[in-house]
Amino acid sequence: VLIVGELINASRKAVGAAIETGNPVDIEQLAVRQSAAGADYIDVNAGMFVGREAEYLQWLVSVVQAVVDAPCCIDSPDPAAIERALHVHRGTAMINSISLEKARHDALLPLVAGSGVKVVALCMSDEGMPATAADRLTIAERLIEDLVRNNVALDDIYVDPLVQPVATRDDFGLGVLKAVDAVMTGFPGVHTICGLSNISYGLPERALLNRTFAVMAVARGLDSLIVNPLDRHLMANLTAARTLAGGDEFCEKYLDAYRAGLFDFEKNP
Amino acid sequence: VLIVGELINASRKAVGAAIETGNPVDIEQLAVRQSAAGADYIDVNAGMFVGREAEYLQWLVSVVQAVVDAPCCIDSPDPAAIERALHVHRGTAMINSISLEKARHDALLPLVAGSGVKVVALCMSDEGMPATAADRLTIAERLIEDLVRNNVALDDIYVDPLVQPVATRDDFGLGVLKAVDAVMTGFPGVHTICGLSNISYGLPERALLNRTFAVMAVARGLDSLIVNPLDRHLMANLTAARTLAGGDEFCEKYLDAYRAGLFDFEKNP
Repeated sequence: VLIVGELINASRKAVGAAIETGNPVDIEQLAVRQSAAGADYIDVNAGMFVGREAEYLQWLVSVVQAVVDAPCCIDSPDPAAIERALHVHRGTAMINSISLEKARHDALLPLVAGSGVKVVALCMSDEGMPATAADRLTIAERLIEDLVRNNVALDDIYVDPLVQPVATRDDFGLGVLKAVDAVMTGFPGVHTICGLSNISYGLPERALLNRTFAVMAVARGLDSLIVNPLDRHLMANLTAARTLAGGDEFCEKYLDAYRAGLFDFEKNP
Repeated sequence: VLIVGELINASRKAVGAAIETGNPVDIEQLAVRQSAAGADYIDVNAGMFVGREAEYLQWLVSVVQAVVDAPCCIDSPDPAAIERALHVHRGTAMINSISLEKARHDALLPLVAGSGVKVVALCMSDEGMPATAADRLTIAERLIEDLVRNNVALDDIYVDPLVQPVATRDDFGLGVLKAVDAVMTGFPGVHTICGLSNISYGLPERALLNRTFAVMAVARGLDSLIVNPLDRHLMANLTAARTLAGGDEFCEKYLDAYRAGLFDFEKNP
């Protein structure tokens, strides 16, 4: 399971403050800690700062890449901000995200077409948020076809079925699970990705719901997640799920994680 | 998710001792505690005691049903022992299990045919244990057809795909998940059930693997589990999974569990 570490987000108080004051220390620490905890990509988001987002996003990429080898997931709805961030990025970035919303789509497509960057394809259109699994799949199909036609490799596409709160509608979780299954079965080579925290919005014990949903999604084929890699319970569940889903010969990865002490919190639950 | 509480098993030291000395107190307590923790059926197993299994199994059913309303899951490979236990059982029992092994199958079928009891259909045949999802499905199909032909209602059939250690073969977990999906999709009305502990055999942090696998199986459609209902982490995961899998309107069941304090251990993980 590919892990995108979500913690460098301006909407988090300490991160917002670090960005505003131009103090790199907290940002560097979050990059290093997430990378050490297993993050394959470091998400950077400065969406809070209207007008200065492009400048701040570029700064975040520079600060992060000065201390870790992991590439960034550049998280913005603004093509101009993304372009500027890509300009200083080393290695293969991920862009989060393109969608079927016309303005966003048309402005972002030229940045993505034939560029070799990885792109999150968010299941959202100008008709609004998808309600059912079928709605999600319809948008996913159109996005995949569109991206492939524009010289984006299947392996560079990460479909995000758009997780919405299960407290709002009781089949929102199931809809995402079914959409993941349908995309992974119907479009071999394409990846699926999602953020988790929306699923538990408005409910108590959100970490329990988030990590349970992560495991359920992995069981249906999800191969990428935007999460907090410092959540040890979640990461332990994902390590176990990866082994249980097959392909961990002799359970070597699981045993390595055990020996590295990743499950030590289990002793005093 | 239907829960079968697995703790009254003679292979557990305290239970074996209670059975041998005819002391009902520990058995009663295990029945009451499992039922209070959410067990829908109480499994009873006296398989350790060759020669006296039938007598002990009958005693266990009497002791359990004297203190809880939940029916028993009568867990034995011996049709004579099951018959004697059924004789004293009130309500609709579950039998664990019939299989395609000829001797076991032919002896057990008359007890099950048209009787209205619920029956676990274990994916095992005289050719040995199934290795792949396809092997499991072949046996499941033959068992379902056979049981239906003998007047067992689909709703009374619980297919057990036979969980084997992922440490033995890295796709044993995936094989079970795929078989669950195929049975739930291909035979509407039939249930699926499994025990968990075999999945983690030979590995460290077994409880973590067991509860992660339970959530993965529920995500693929599994609707019944043979587990330790006193494992609070497991039960919390299952409560969350049930809500996330849809059908928990306004998350009422989840919120009830929260208010009842079932997630309290989360505070100090």
